[in-house]
Amino acid sequence: MSRELTIAVVGATGAVGREMLKILEERAFPAGRVIPLASSSSAGAQVPFGQGGLEVRELREDSFSGVDLALFSAGGSVSERFAPQAVARGCVVVDNSSAWRMDDRCPLVVPEVNRQALAGHRGIIANPNCSTIQMVVVLAPLHKAMGVTRVVVSTYQAVSGTGQKGIQELDAQVRQMFNMQEPEPSVYPHRIAFNCLPHIDVFLENDYTKEEMKMTRETVKIMGDASVLVTATTVRVPVFYGHSESLNVALAGKISPAEARALLSVAPGVRVVDNPSQRLYPLPSEAAGEDEVFVGRIREDFTQPNTLNMWVVADNVRKGAALNAVQIAECLLADGLVRVADTGAFL
Amino acid sequence: MSRELTIAVVGATGAVGREMLKILEERAFPAGRVIPLASSSSAGAQVPFGQGGLEVRELREDSFSGVDLALFSAGGSVSERFAPQAVARGCVVVDNSSAWRMDDRCPLVVPEVNRQALAGHRGIIANPNCSTIQMVVVLAPLHKAMGVTRVVVSTYQAVSGTGQKGIQELDAQVRQMFNMQEPEPSVYPHRIAFNCLPHIDVFLENDYTKEEMKMTRETVKIMGDASVLVTATTVRVPVFYGHSESLNVALAGKISPAEARALLSVAPGVRVVDNPSQRLYPLPSEAAGEDEVFVGRIREDFTQPNTLNMWVVADNVRKGAALNAVQIAECLLADGLVRVADTGAFL
Repeated sequence: MSRELTIAVVGATGAVGREMLKILEERAFPAGRVIPLASSSSAGAQVPFGQGGLEVRELREDSFSGVDLALFSAGGSVSERFAPQAVARGCVVVDNSSAWRMDDRCPLVVPEVNRQALAGHRGIIANPNCSTIQMVVVLAPLHKAMGVTRVVVSTYQAVSGTGQKGIQELDAQVRQMFNMQEPEPSVYPHRIAFNCLPHIDVFLENDYTKEEMKMTRETVKIMGDASVLVTATTVRVPVFYGHSESLNVALAGKISPAEARALLSVAPGVRVVDNPSQRLYPLPSEAAGEDEVFVGRIREDFTQPNTLNMWVVADNVRKGAALNAVQIAECLLADGLVRVADTGAFL
Repeated sequence: MSRELTIAVVGATGAVGREMLKILEERAFPAGRVIPLASSSSAGAQVPFGQGGLEVRELREDSFSGVDLALFSAGGSVSERFAPQAVARGCVVVDNSSAWRMDDRCPLVVPEVNRQALAGHRGIIANPNCSTIQMVVVLAPLHKAMGVTRVVVSTYQAVSGTGQKGIQELDAQVRQMFNMQEPEPSVYPHRIAFNCLPHIDVFLENDYTKEEMKMTRETVKIMGDASVLVTATTVRVPVFYGHSESLNVALAGKISPAEARALLSVAPGVRVVDNPSQRLYPLPSEAAGEDEVFVGRIREDFTQPNTLNMWVVADNVRKGAALNAVQIAECLLADGLVRVADTGAFL
């Protein structure tokens, strides 16, 4: 089957879509055919892939006939509408939007953490939020060893998390300010250049943002344990690539920083960078373009027992989105799960 | 006395020193004479003040003869050496460096919080660290109302906290990157442009930075209560002016977000900006140039009882340094404390 696998990338001209194509190529994903799909305005454009690039096709309901696997990254409303249509045509969907993440029918998967949740999928597998992915990759080994009871997290999120338009806005605003012009915010509610915005996604009734509640709810679903409590403050910072997170992690028992380092250094998908005297700790500038989740600044929180502080950084476009989706696709393939048993499950 | 008061500003050419002069002028501080002092390399330079500006004089041990009050902001080693010399000549020192902060002989003062600690000073009053000042201005009213038991804080600190050289480094690095050059870090251990550095000041034996431990230790001294436990992660971000802080505050009893807002809205030096649906929350871009500490995003932490999350922003060069020092000077003057009882207290 693998030699003839056809894979579609929906949202192929976006920041994550382009990275998906790049990663499929880098990892020599065994697809016989790769089809980039996007809105009609991008149809006919070329996207980089292989020797000659690929021509983008218009996304339509019938785009998925003969497609085995589709990676979606074109926003929630596109996923809501087109993912069920893809499944109806026998195509398995890995969806990067938030549309299906909390749907009981859809596994929410970070392969290092809950690959087993893929078994029994019904056609749509959800890719978690970027800031959640990098956090759970680090929490899972600690949870397995000792039980994570409560996490206080504050994020430092890059503009690439908003896609190409976020990157362009930071770039343009910095240039304007260096030319003595006051920038007009368009993508973000306020100026992002040389600023910090404690506002990502929309505000909910409890005065948390949707981004913050994603970290709370998605973590429970991925870890499969409602006893893992997360309270988050999510903040956009003027960084192009790489989300950083300051974590305060309470555990059910004691793990020393040295034990945590040892444990995390053998955990899948994690790279421990934690030698402060040598000025070694995770940095967005060094995580950009890398696959692993970086963790460092691991130290005891002396204000209460069994608690650690740590600093976690990852490339939000790669592990936070495109790479995780491709890794899910690889697991589906390896486990013989690129098949839809019930094409009507989401109609 | 006030008409004839002579005040010196030590480190007058630095970012904080210039702001001190500006604030003395803005607030019409009742000094008959203002003397800007700096190292020999800056002697003879002009700094803005009043109509004509002032000529900078070289800082020497005998610079303080006839000076009633000196505001120091020229680094720890200058303060260590010259503050005792100033006191020996009968000059009261307000010191912005970390040199004297934890010395039992020196009050560590944020006027809104512990003005009473000025009484009985012995000649040197310490100005707290910038990130501590803005935090305690918000914590103090909550502590008074209900008792703050534990704080988890993550900071987003501007480069102006490092002085002019920090501002120049961010500016230069951004320009270099926009001209396709890879910047060479000089002031900071790694590139600060479009990056986040979880490293401020030096690392200590417990793997916290000195900046982080300042927030822990200075808070206890200012609040006068060793039961207030603070664990901090301090991070430099590519922002020119304005430190931001994500606070998770555990209290001895329940205060609702609405009660906290009401309480803080009448607290001295605090401005509550907390209307998310109108996109109103504290921002470094809006706190820059302002005197108050801004607080918003106040919400219940649903992961444990009696705990609030909040977002606190202030102009680190003003309230975090220069303004707080001038406010201390104003209190000393109002309370008749511009006098040195024992000129040998620090010799």
